[in-house]
Amino acid sequence: MDELNKTAETESSCHATSERRSHHSPEVKKNLTSRLNRIEGQIRGIKGMIDKDTYCDDVITQISAVQSALNSVSKILLEGHLKHCVVERVQEGDEEVVDELLTTIKRLMK
Amino acid sequence: MDELNKTAETESSCHATSERRSHHSPEVKKNLTSRLNRIEGQIRGIKGMIDKDTYCDDVITQISAVQSALNSVSKILLEGHLKHCVVERVQEGDEEVVDELLTTIKRLMK
Amino acid sequence: MDELNKTAETESSCHATSERRSHHSPEVKKNLTSRLNRIEGQIRGIKGMIDKDTYCDDVITQISAVQSALNSVSKILLEGHLKHCVVERVQEGDEEVVDELLTTIKRLMK
Amino acid sequence: MDELNKTAETESSCHATSERRSHHSPEVKKNLTSRLNRIEGQIRGIKGMIDKDTYCDDVITQISAVQSALNSVSKILLEGHLKHCVVERVQEGDEEVVDELLTTIKRLMK
Repeated sequence: MDELNKTAETESSCHATSERRSHHSPEVKKNLTSRLNRIEGQIRGIKGMIDKDTYCDDVITQISAVQSALNSVSKILLEGHLKHCVVERVQEGDEEVVDELLTTIKRLMK
Repeated sequence: MDELNKTAETESSCHATSERRSHHSPEVKKNLTSRLNRIEGQIRGIKGMIDKDTYCDDVITQISAVQSALNSVSKILLEGHLKHCVVERVQEGDEEVVDELLTTIKRLMK
Repeated sequence: MDELNKTAETESSCHATSERRSHHSPEVKKNLTSRLNRIEGQIRGIKGMIDKDTYCDDVITQISAVQSALNSVSKILLEGHLKHCVVERVQEGDEEVVDELLTTIKRLMK
Repeated sequence: MDELNKTAETESSCHATSERRSHHSPEVKKNLTSRLNRIEGQIRGIKGMIDKDTYCDDVITQISAVQSALNSVSKILLEGHLKHCVVERVQEGDEEVVDELLTTIKRLMK
């Protein structure tokens, strides 16, 4: 897919009920990707810790760090979603997006 | 390191203050490693979702699944730690392990 | 304040920056109040458990139940806020409400 | 029940399977009770906020404060439980207490 088409598709993404898409800016995508690369490295690190019988407390500390890092990724995703998709769809009178958002927030609160 | 030495070291691991080690059975280590491999795959999947502009809600759902999977890993680690290290050290009269455990639990509760 | 004035004030509440108000229906308010009454009773029950040296595990179980009940109250409040205030203000072009909402969600996710 | 008998019962509480009791010092009990009194007051405050249509965000902030305060109560209870009951029973060779503790911790981690 060429860059132009991709942008066009992205712009209309919020109200295409058939196939919704997210629409983060290149900066946000780069930020998210580098965070996820770091998290992937941390998971590999934890596997190494298990393999080398690292003390349980230290492994749990490392898992907590990954959990926090994943929480940050969720918050960035949610911010993009709210500021673009939710605002746009609410302004168009589509209130179904609010129920959807509520489900997502409840999942994050559990 | 040969298997015999490894076992010997493992057995004495709980009270070696110089360099504490964990001491999961081969079955538990295999279980933890396969869980972490699956988590690593999920993280790579989430990167792919970001790259393909997957709808935000679906990405957050996937992140929640990884958080639950990491929670399970923490619980397995903690169970092994409690049933071996904590019990052994408390029976030897070492109560410092209890403060350490409390710190770990507080980290998990945050 | 008479009921008529109260309603009038409530209806205009979402865009009064000087003094924002919530605007739950009488049914929702009754629901929230009865949940909070029950929670207050549970707290008193927990005080009684402490006083009578009830076993720690049972007290913690009871505290967890209160935490879940408070979570439900937060979700009901958030649902009302989203469906009324946020939708109304976004439709009026006020996007500041989205930053505010994000702060609230982050507080609930912590 | 007179104070003497109460103390006697408390001291033997950790290994009485028939009716387990907690055994916090008078200072800890006073601390817990005053925390719970404050929490009860906060709950009443939240009811008042609902009644007066206080802005949703402010109510949620107040609920979060109560959740943190309840978490602190759980941590104090757990610390007492670990340092007295768990240590005592493990030293007596009763390892069932460890499974019980694990269940409690998992409840706190949920």
